[in-house]
Amino acid sequence: MSTTTSPATYLDRLDRARARMHEADIDVLLVSVGRDLPYLTGYEAMPLERLTMLVVPKDGEATLVVARMEAPRVVELPEVFKLLPWNETEDPVAIVAGLVGRPSVASIGDTMWARFLVDLLPHWPTSSTRYVRSTEVMNALRMRKDAAEIAALAAAGAAVDRIAADLQGGRIALAGRTEAAVSDDLGARIVAEGHQRVNFAIVAAGANAASPHHHAGDRVISEGDIVLCDFGGTMDGYCSDITRCVFLGEPPAEVADAYEVLRQAQAAAVLAGTVGTPCEEVDRVARRIISAAGYGEYFMHRTGHGIGMEEHEDPYMVEGNGLPLEPGHAFSVEPGIYLPGRWGMRLEDIVVATDSGPRAVNDADHSLVSV
Amino acid sequence: MSTTTSPATYLDRLDRARARMHEADIDVLLVSVGRDLPYLTGYEAMPLERLTMLVVPKDGEATLVVARMEAPRVVELPEVFKLLPWNETEDPVAIVAGLVGRPSVASIGDTMWARFLVDLLPHWPTSSTRYVRSTEVMNALRMRKDAAEIAALAAAGAAVDRIAADLQGGRIALAGRTEAAVSDDLGARIVAEGHQRVNFAIVAAGANAASPHHHAGDRVISEGDIVLCDFGGTMDGYCSDITRCVFLGEPPAEVADAYEVLRQAQAAAVLAGTVGTPCEEVDRVARRIISAAGYGEYFMHRTGHGIGMEEHEDPYMVEGNGLPLEPGHAFSVEPGIYLPGRWGMRLEDIVVATDSGPRAVNDADHSLVSV
Repeated sequence: MSTTTSPATYLDRLDRARARMHEADIDVLLVSVGRDLPYLTGYEAMPLERLTMLVVPKDGEATLVVARMEAPRVVELPEVFKLLPWNETEDPVAIVAGLVGRPSVASIGDTMWARFLVDLLPHWPTSSTRYVRSTEVMNALRMRKDAAEIAALAAAGAAVDRIAADLQGGRIALAGRTEAAVSDDLGARIVAEGHQRVNFAIVAAGANAASPHHHAGDRVISEGDIVLCDFGGTMDGYCSDITRCVFLGEPPAEVADAYEVLRQAQAAAVLAGTVGTPCEEVDRVARRIISAAGYGEYFMHRTGHGIGMEEHEDPYMVEGNGLPLEPGHAFSVEPGIYLPGRWGMRLEDIVVATDSGPRAVNDADHSLVSV
Repeated sequence: MSTTTSPATYLDRLDRARARMHEADIDVLLVSVGRDLPYLTGYEAMPLERLTMLVVPKDGEATLVVARMEAPRVVELPEVFKLLPWNETEDPVAIVAGLVGRPSVASIGDTMWARFLVDLLPHWPTSSTRYVRSTEVMNALRMRKDAAEIAALAAAGAAVDRIAADLQGGRIALAGRTEAAVSDDLGARIVAEGHQRVNFAIVAAGANAASPHHHAGDRVISEGDIVLCDFGGTMDGYCSDITRCVFLGEPPAEVADAYEVLRQAQAAAVLAGTVGTPCEEVDRVARRIISAAGYGEYFMHRTGHGIGMEEHEDPYMVEGNGLPLEPGHAFSVEPGIYLPGRWGMRLEDIVVATDSGPRAVNDADHSLVSV
C-alpha cells in the first residue's frame, strides 16, 4: 500500500471518514491492528502487546500513537497524520484517551485487541460514551471498491484461476498424497502466482469435505474421493478466494446430481448480484434452488462474504442483510452442500457489482471435473 | 496441543482458572482468538468474523460457543466444556450474554477482536459490569510453566541455537544477498528445524539495525556491515526467540567496544533472573551497565518479555513491574544499543527462573562473530 498509494489518497480517505463521522454523529475513530489503519495511513500495526492506535477526531488532526521503538518503521506523512511515539514506561491507552475529550460516540477498530478497549473503558465509561464498530465509519469507504481496487481483485482472481485450472487439468497430483501435502502445494503455487501471502488452502477429501472449514490433514486422497479445494492469498494488498471441487474417477450419480444443483444455484446467485439487489436476496436465490432439490438442511452457511483488503469483510450475503448492492461492492458467492460422514461440495467465485451487471473475477471451469 | 494434552489437564486448568476467579472476585471469563482458548480446551479459534467464545462462569459449566459450520473442527471434550453451535442468522454475542447473568466483573480475552466487546457492552454496561483483562485470571496459570512446557521451550530454543550456529559459522550466506533473502532463508530453516510456524525473522544490516523491529528489505548486505538477526517460531505450541549479531569483516573499535558492553549487560541480566527478583530489577541490571558506558539513551526498549504459547506474554522485564520472579517464569533477556543512522545491536536469550537459578535455554555463541 505505502509504495503505491499517494498521500493525497490518504488525505481523501480521511476526509471521507470524517464526513461519514459527521453524518453518523461519531466523535472519534480509533483503529489499530487490521486493515483500516493501512487503508487510512499506509502503515500496518504489528499485532503486538505494544499499542499502535490511529486517533481520528471528527474535526481535529489525526494522530498515530506508536511505541517509540516502532516509530522508525512508520513512513511519516505529516500532512496526513501526526506521529506520537510513546515510551516503554508510559501508558499508551491514557495517552490515547487524553488526545480527545470524552466522546459521546466512539468508533472502535473491529480487530483491535480487546485488551486495549478494556483499558479504555475506565477513561470513557458506557454511561457517557457509546461504542460502535469501526465499520460504521469505514464501510462507507471500504465497501465500494474503486477502479484500482477492482483491478487488484481481478489480478488476484486471475492468479488463483490459473491454479484452479492446473487442479482441474490434473497438473496437481492428488491420488496417494495427503490433504496436507496438497495444501502445501497450493500454498506454494499461491505465492508463485504473485501473492505475497497465503491466507488459507483448505483441502478436504471424501467425507472430510463435509466440514466446511476442514483443516487439511493426514488423510490420503484416493480414487473415488471428491476433493474440495478452497484457497486464496493477498496480492498487493487485495485478496483472492476461490473454491473448486474435483472428483477422482467418475462421480456416482448422487454426487453428480447434487453438484449440478450446486452449480445452478451458484450461477443463479452470481447473476442475482446486480446493483440495487439486497445482499440477502443473493443468499436466497442460491438457497431456494438448493432447498428445492432437497438439500436445504445441508447448506448451513451464508452464501458469501465481502472481500477486499480482508478475506472476509462487509457486505455479507446472508439472510437479514437488506443492504442493497452498490457499484464496487465485491463479494464471494459460494453455496455448498455437506452430507455429514459422506461428502461435501462448494463452488465459489468472487463477484463485483457494477452498473453493467455482476462481474465475476474468476472464470475457472465450474463443473465437477474428473481427474 | 489437542493431540498431546489430556482432558484431565484441561479440567485441571479450568479448575485452577475458577479458583483464581474466586480469589479475584471475577464472575465470568470470556476467551476467543488467542492462546488462552487452546490452553484451556485444546481448540484454537479461527481469526474470523464468526465468533468463537469460551464462556467460563466462576461456578458453572464452561460452554464453547462456535459457529455451526466450525463445529466439526472441534474435538469435543464433554467433561471439559459444553459445545453450543450458533446458526448464521443468530446473534452470537447475545447468546454469550444470555449464558450468564449480568456479571459484576467480567474478564475478557486479551486478543479477542474488539468488535465482540463493542457488541457486548450494551448487554453489560460499565455501570454494572467492570471489565478486566484475561491476564487477571490466566497469568496465574500460564506464567508458571510446568516441566512439559519448559521442555517444549528448551526444544524450540535448541532448534534456533542450531540456526544461530550456522549463521555464526558462515553457513548462511550474507554478503551480496538482500536482508529479505536472508530472512526467507532463516524462515525456511526455522521450519526445517522442527517448528510448525515461523513467527518472525528480522534481518537488519548496517544502519537498518538501528530500527529494533526493522522489516527485512531490499538492502544488500556487504562487507563492513553488522547484521542483526532476531528470529523465532512455534514448535509444538511453544515459542522460540533468539537474537544474534554478526559482523562482515573486522568490526571497528567503536562497534566492538559497544558490543562488549552489550554482552556484559545481557549476561549480567540473565544472572539476575533468580526466583524472587522483581522483573524490573532484571531490566535495571542491563540498563545500568549500558548507561554507565554512555549508551543509555540508545537503549530505548524494555529488557525482555515473557514467552510461552505466545512470543510476547507476561511477565515483562520493564521498569515499573515489581512482580517477583517465580519458578517456571520464562522470559527473554534482550538489551540493545541503537545509534540512529549508523548501527544497532541486540543480544537475546530465553531464560527460565528455577529454584536452582536462572536457566538459559539458548547457548549459541554470545560474541560478535566475524563472518
